[in-house]
Amino acid sequence: MTEIGDSIYALAKELFPICRSITGNGVRKTLRILQAEVGMLEIHEVPTGQKAFDWEVPREWNIRDAYVIDPTGEKIIDFQQSNLNVVGYSVPVDKVVSLDELQEHLHSLPEQPNAIPYITSYYQERWGFCLTHTQRETLPPGQYRVMINSELEKGSLTYGEIILPGRVSEEVFLSTYICHPSMANNELSGPTVVTQIAKWLQTIDRHYTYRIVFIPETIGSIVYLSRNLDEMKQNIIAGYNITCVGDDRNYSYLASRQGDTLADRVAQHVLGHMHPEFTAYSYLDRGSDERQYCSPGVDLPVASIMRTKYGEYPEYHTSLDNLDLVSAAGLQGAYEVIRRCIECLEANETLRVTVRCEPQLGKRGLYPTLSTKRTAEMVRDMMNLLAYADGSRTLLEIADTIGVPMWELIPIVHRLKDEGLLESLT
Amino acid sequence: MTEIGDSIYALAKELFPICRSITGNGVRKTLRILQAEVGMLEIHEVPTGQKAFDWEVPREWNIRDAYVIDPTGEKIIDFQQSNLNVVGYSVPVDKVVSLDELQEHLHSLPEQPNAIPYITSYYQERWGFCLTHTQRETLPPGQYRVMINSELEKGSLTYGEIILPGRVSEEVFLSTYICHPSMANNELSGPTVVTQIAKWLQTIDRHYTYRIVFIPETIGSIVYLSRNLDEMKQNIIAGYNITCVGDDRNYSYLASRQGDTLADRVAQHVLGHMHPEFTAYSYLDRGSDERQYCSPGVDLPVASIMRTKYGEYPEYHTSLDNLDLVSAAGLQGAYEVIRRCIECLEANETLRVTVRCEPQLGKRGLYPTLSTKRTAEMVRDMMNLLAYADGSRTLLEIADTIGVPMWELIPIVHRLKDEGLLESLT
Amino acid sequence: MTEIGDSIYALAKELFPICRSITGNGVRKTLRILQAEVGMLEIHEVPTGQKAFDWEVPREWNIRDAYVIDPTGEKIIDFQQSNLNVVGYSVPVDKVVSLDELQEHLHSLPEQPNAIPYITSYYQERWGFCLTHTQRETLPPGQYRVMINSELEKGSLTYGEIILPGRVSEEVFLSTYICHPSMANNELSGPTVVTQIAKWLQTIDRHYTYRIVFIPETIGSIVYLSRNLDEMKQNIIAGYNITCVGDDRNYSYLASRQGDTLADRVAQHVLGHMHPEFTAYSYLDRGSDERQYCSPGVDLPVASIMRTKYGEYPEYHTSLDNLDLVSAAGLQGAYEVIRRCIECLEANETLRVTVRCEPQLGKRGLYPTLSTKRTAEMVRDMMNLLAYADGSRTLLEIADTIGVPMWELIPIVHRLKDEGLLESLT
Repeated sequence: MTEIGDSIYALAKELFPICRSITGNGVRKTLRILQAEVGMLEIHEVPTGQKAFDWEVPREWNIRDAYVIDPTGEKIIDFQQSNLNVVGYSVPVDKVVSLDELQEHLHSLPEQPNAIPYITSYYQERWGFCLTHTQRETLPPGQYRVMINSELEKGSLTYGEIILPGRVSEEVFLSTYICHPSMANNELSGPTVVTQIAKWLQTIDRHYTYRIVFIPETIGSIVYLSRNLDEMKQNIIAGYNITCVGDDRNYSYLASRQGDTLADRVAQHVLGHMHPEFTAYSYLDRGSDERQYCSPGVDLPVASIMRTKYGEYPEYHTSLDNLDLVSAAGLQGAYEVIRRCIECLEANETLRVTVRCEPQLGKRGLYPTLSTKRTAEMVRDMMNLLAYADGSRTLLEIADTIGVPMWELIPIVHRLKDEGLLESLT
Repeated sequence: MTEIGDSIYALAKELFPICRSITGNGVRKTLRILQAEVGMLEIHEVPTGQKAFDWEVPREWNIRDAYVIDPTGEKIIDFQQSNLNVVGYSVPVDKVVSLDELQEHLHSLPEQPNAIPYITSYYQERWGFCLTHTQRETLPPGQYRVMINSELEKGSLTYGEIILPGRVSEEVFLSTYICHPSMANNELSGPTVVTQIAKWLQTIDRHYTYRIVFIPETIGSIVYLSRNLDEMKQNIIAGYNITCVGDDRNYSYLASRQGDTLADRVAQHVLGHMHPEFTAYSYLDRGSDERQYCSPGVDLPVASIMRTKYGEYPEYHTSLDNLDLVSAAGLQGAYEVIRRCIECLEANETLRVTVRCEPQLGKRGLYPTLSTKRTAEMVRDMMNLLAYADGSRTLLEIADTIGVPMWELIPIVHRLKDEGLLESLT
Repeated sequence: MTEIGDSIYALAKELFPICRSITGNGVRKTLRILQAEVGMLEIHEVPTGQKAFDWEVPREWNIRDAYVIDPTGEKIIDFQQSNLNVVGYSVPVDKVVSLDELQEHLHSLPEQPNAIPYITSYYQERWGFCLTHTQRETLPPGQYRVMINSELEKGSLTYGEIILPGRVSEEVFLSTYICHPSMANNELSGPTVVTQIAKWLQTIDRHYTYRIVFIPETIGSIVYLSRNLDEMKQNIIAGYNITCVGDDRNYSYLASRQGDTLADRVAQHVLGHMHPEFTAYSYLDRGSDERQYCSPGVDLPVASIMRTKYGEYPEYHTSLDNLDLVSAAGLQGAYEVIRRCIECLEANETLRVTVRCEPQLGKRGLYPTLSTKRTAEMVRDMMNLLAYADGSRTLLEIADTIGVPMWELIPIVHRLKDEGLLESLT
């Protein structure tokens, strides 16, 4: 039942221990593992200092080790135990400090005392450690050795890109991020589900070209857009930002800025039929790379598909967002939603009936001889499809008008085309 | 109070016994009776085999007699008792069969054991009898004589058409069907009410031309469209399919495919004010000739006006849909609704006030000297009419904006035109 | 706290005793007092008989004294006590009449027995007195002396006009009326609040030109429009009719005829944020000079701003609409709403962000270093403003989209313009 989910979960498990950030070897290692899954994935390096609109590529950060040793000589915080223990982009340090001074560099969550928070400081030089609040409260006064063996130097920003050509140059776009250390839902669910989608896309006869990117959030999408904007604006007909797609709770969708693009309408259609209890967020609730894809002047038709949205679940941005939070079933559910969205995009042609008045279905054997509830519904759907296939509506619009999932109409479309009763205007 | 309804009911009673089908002498006889009411009704014959879009005119069916004789020699099912006893379009048969074989040709309704169902088989050759389920359960084993004296041969499809010329060539269209045997609401209420409308239309000064058709359902409207489509598309500004307009229960309206044509807006306005509890059906609930009139490429502005909709009342398509189900009051109610719709269409001109700012009504005696609730409302309606008669709105749109029935504004429009304060842009 | 309100109230108190009507010396005296407040106010006289669309300027009415003396010789009704005691535009009379004949000329309110009603008869020659119903019921039979020392002669209609030039010729329009005798809310609240607005407008750097009129209701707006229509249609971008703005109860807004003009959207925005419980009336509820400003062919974008609407409070058009009904706080509240509307109109430019993707706010110090709830909201508002400043929206539209008061965005706009991140397309 969850064969695909099991495979996605296994990949997430493999990627979990790697210490990723917005740059560095953790990202490279992650991308090489994804490349082993999808050979067409190309890895790009963009040098530190390169301009990207109002931004520039930051220095590259790498870390080898980090720890804190308490007054009794015990190693109480250890990067080797959890890479969340170190503030992301911490500059190197190796000294002895008092507890008071140490406290200024510690981060914990009084309201979630057993969770290690996830903290970064990309654009201001700092160092720091994260720990559970429970542990923090036990720290005795005295002298502490703090050691962070990191480098923050000229290097590059790394991202992955898959281009799967289709019959037309128009593109469907998928974006997911790789920039968080060991977190499962708000990091690995996205790239692993998207990798599985890419594997499936390789097996189908694609109408559209597919552009799939694995990038660090914010700076990565800005850098990617700065290098590809004209081509993307010209080709992309719909896109999705894929994030937080691994838990077993909600399904959700966050609208593009415009709110009614093809990407929005397909996501609403698919979730509305598959998971009618899904949450629809407005662009005002945004928080991931749609902020860049939909920004003024960029204006790509990109919506987000999620299970429980980032920031809306208690484990978000803590050590509790681990491999227990996501499941094979949760990941597979998201995979199926995204796949359905793509199937709908692929089949969304403008249709026109070829005869005036209702066709005579009987003489073509289109009325099933065995009358069951299911066949009665199929006849109803076929008649409704024929009634609205007036050359002004796409299959998605017809499906929304007649209130049935688009995928139930696709086989009927094929049958009616075979009979010469329906033609595509696309 | 129901003088007009009594007259409609009397006509329905006269037509009730005739055995109609989608072709044949029953239709001709029915049309000749209607012709006696409205001399301008023209009867058309379309030969078997003539193409009509995806269809062709079927063979003509006529029946003289039919019965079943039970093992004891008793005539237990008899066409002379009720023409519903025979499946419509039954091929001739005259033989002796066992009860088991007979059962394969019998139709009854276990859930309505005292009703004879109405069954047809136009496009597949069969024979069969209909009876009450109560009777069916009493049939003893043994040999039964089955006899159907019918003909299914080349002939023609018959329909009636009335054209009442108006001052302009633009047309209002009314369609009703004549193809069911002895059923009162789902057959005779339509043609009898429409005949009464035609009689009234002959007496008025018509702005529009009126096209009124009496046709067999489905194949009749398809045939009629195939012969008149270009002219109809060019001229028809609004039309109604009239069916099931004889009972005393609901009023209802079924939208055109487009949903907001002039026909829709007028029907909603009239029913909304006369019978605010009316049911509004979507085109997805369609089931009569609007299926053809609104089909892609035909796209006529045709909605349906009904009392209780076909399929929504228990007596539908059974022998219980008889002369007790309809009433003079029920028929007259529908007549009044349709007449109001036509009056609204006739008066629906675009209006513009001729002066800037509010006119001085006092100096023209347009403020009533006697102030009552009714005159206060008239002044309010007059001021509102003047406020919205800006040359961009028809009287219907003004009436909908200011929330009053259009027919209460018509005398005010006449008065204001007489005073030179209002002009028509139509 | 109510310094401005106190000043408005003091002016209303000074104007209260004057006997105004649609013409005459009361209007002139009122305008001269307002002129003392705003020197730029110009007083215009339009001669009796001058045509104004469907109307003409009526004769001028002036009154010196009026009273009724009862059979015992007592002066029981006295214009000197209250100018509401005389029907407005009463023709002169001086005779002795029976109680029965007197009754035909008396007006009182049985349901508000202690209120003197306000009655006029501008366009039909009459005379009459108004009194409390309590007093009327005590009148003994006998002979009464009735005396009205008035004049109804050729003269002129008087109105006031202030034009405050701005940087552009496009105009914001304010209209209020001066035609009622001693009534506080439904007369003096309007001109006194608008006078205070005019004083404030003189102190600011105006983008728009301001046209402010003090006119008699109905005939005054018709006359004013007949003299200025072309210029007004060309220049006015938004306007408000200001009436009944002095009580402490509701706030309300009455839509323009079109309903969604800039004036409507600004009023709804301002009241929606300042007084979300405000009442929104439709143009169908109209009753003041918007009837003329929005009439077909005039079509100015003029809405009304009120506190409790005329006709919606029990003291309306009676002697109970006195200086106790209005308050400094009530008047100041309305002043603040109107001023906010003007501030929004002045700041309502079309905005476009100058960079692609989100700007890097950190490097410009636009992220506050002190993080409080208020600064977090400011950052959120700034990001949302940047996200929607796409060159297709005005600041008002952005504010409505992101759900914050426009005036909270104005300082952010200034800051972002200083940083070169935002530009105006207006």
